[in-house]
Amino acid sequence: MKDMSMIIPTYEDMLAAHERIKPHIRRTPVMQSDYLNELTGAQLFFKCENFQEPGAFKVRGGSNAVFGLSDEEAQRGVCTHSSGNHALCLSYAAGRRGIPCNVVMPRTAPQAKKDAVRRYGGTITECEPSTTSREAVFAEVQARTGGEFVHPYNDPRVIAGQGTCSKEFMEQTDGLDMMVAPIGGGGMISGTCLTLSTLAPEVSIIAAEPEQADDAYRSFKAGHIIADDAPETIADGLKVPLKDLTWHFVSNHVSDIMTASEQEIIDAMKITWKYLRIVMEPSCAVPLAVILKNKEAFAGKRVGVVVTGGNVDLDKLPWMAQ
Amino acid sequence: MKDMSMIIPTYEDMLAAHERIKPHIRRTPVMQSDYLNELTGAQLFFKCENFQEPGAFKVRGGSNAVFGLSDEEAQRGVCTHSSGNHALCLSYAAGRRGIPCNVVMPRTAPQAKKDAVRRYGGTITECEPSTTSREAVFAEVQARTGGEFVHPYNDPRVIAGQGTCSKEFMEQTDGLDMMVAPIGGGGMISGTCLTLSTLAPEVSIIAAEPEQADDAYRSFKAGHIIADDAPETIADGLKVPLKDLTWHFVSNHVSDIMTASEQEIIDAMKITWKYLRIVMEPSCAVPLAVILKNKEAFAGKRVGVVVTGGNVDLDKLPWMAQ
Repeated sequence: MKDMSMIIPTYEDMLAAHERIKPHIRRTPVMQSDYLNELTGAQLFFKCENFQEPGAFKVRGGSNAVFGLSDEEAQRGVCTHSSGNHALCLSYAAGRRGIPCNVVMPRTAPQAKKDAVRRYGGTITECEPSTTSREAVFAEVQARTGGEFVHPYNDPRVIAGQGTCSKEFMEQTDGLDMMVAPIGGGGMISGTCLTLSTLAPEVSIIAAEPEQADDAYRSFKAGHIIADDAPETIADGLKVPLKDLTWHFVSNHVSDIMTASEQEIIDAMKITWKYLRIVMEPSCAVPLAVILKNKEAFAGKRVGVVVTGGNVDLDKLPWMAQ
Repeated sequence: MKDMSMIIPTYEDMLAAHERIKPHIRRTPVMQSDYLNELTGAQLFFKCENFQEPGAFKVRGGSNAVFGLSDEEAQRGVCTHSSGNHALCLSYAAGRRGIPCNVVMPRTAPQAKKDAVRRYGGTITECEPSTTSREAVFAEVQARTGGEFVHPYNDPRVIAGQGTCSKEFMEQTDGLDMMVAPIGGGGMISGTCLTLSTLAPEVSIIAAEPEQADDAYRSFKAGHIIADDAPETIADGLKVPLKDLTWHFVSNHVSDIMTASEQEIIDAMKITWKYLRIVMEPSCAVPLAVILKNKEAFAGKRVGVVVTGGNVDLDKLPWMAQ
């Protein structure tokens, strides 16, 4: 089995990914709000990946991996570990190809995400909400099923797939000055770097991270990967650490990493629901939270924001729990 | 002052309205969900008018009225009564033209809608939540301000404006078999009839109404307008009765009116938030509720659904209150 975590994907890989996945993804709309522009002083463009059928940009990377397999490889199915959206998007892609998908998910993952995995035909094995537990349980599942491992982000097929989002985003706007996306393991940010460093190197790439899971921020400042085992944040998609491939892109192409508190994330989430009128996850609110917190850095700029996913438990909204 | 309630708008009025309002409205996207298609057995297309800047299709009719005024008429401003979205959309349009807007709203209208009226510069006078009270308070406000009355639906300028939504909808889809929209006073349905009876007379037009405010349904069956004074439903945008102009369109062009219970409306609303991942009002959920309730009538058909608005109190979601 090839070690996928050692292969750096190229711009051509991203272009090939886009052709491969087009029948399986949506070209999601870019939305604007005059009110949010007034509030921030920037001109904001929101790429609504929450409108993908399975509700997240991760359908891009997952579809690229699944539909890039040979028939022989595909027969054994795929497997992964994920806090949620990669699990359900990989299940969705595997379901479209008609192959098995085994996923390891923390028992604390949102119910909406677990339900979706099962709806798409995926099989869940639960683990504790820590990197240690996740990796141990996954090793057992992979050995038992023999499926192709599609890492949620430290995989060139996945990063090339995520990069297709920025390609569409640039086609849908008349140029941008900055692009802001949330950072957890760094898959979306790496895909963004991959695409923009060739297509539009003038665009600054800003990663947005919860203060309470700021390992990427600390890695960026320290110049090497720092990984926390079990950070706690409402932005459930952003708890995982950087890995070699994503660190390559983050350390070479990201202009800055900015952080926001839990309350700032919740406030930004509610503002987006109210004024853009879209359902999105806490993780997707981190970019607007850092823009509102650092207005001077974005004022007067054309800023792209990647709305990464929309799979939330509607019965457990963060501003109702308070 | 002309009596606007006696003038039936024409297809040409609708075309002129579209040219007039284009700089002030969005060409909202049409969304689909494979899951909702599976669930209903129909092919559903959702026109997302909740994504208008002020959050509702009523910005079309309001903008057509405001920007169609002569400079002399405009000077005195506009006034209206409304359960919410017409009030805030008229305020929005008046704000863009820089003229005063006075609105009478029931004191029970959602806080989100009252806040938006004030944000756009409108002035609110509150009334009791009944047609009787609304009309009495409004007569006083109109006499005092002298503004041009823009009725929320019984006005040819408003109906011609709302009709532009169906024009875009037909341009954005490859033909439809049926179109379903909520019915309260009948403004959106009348605009839909106005446009489709010329542009696409083969499309069946279905109105969807809450069982608890089913005056349009009973009017349709009886063959004359039946008006309730103060019906109670979670679909706060649909409590008002038909009037002469909207009855003209409903009685001549609507194929059927279907109703749904409060629980069916709430269930359809939650399903839409979950699978389309959009924030929309209870009123907009009535079409999906009647489709789910009458699957055989829609199965195998290409069905357009107008998502009329997205101004909800995020702190008071109906499934949390239960």
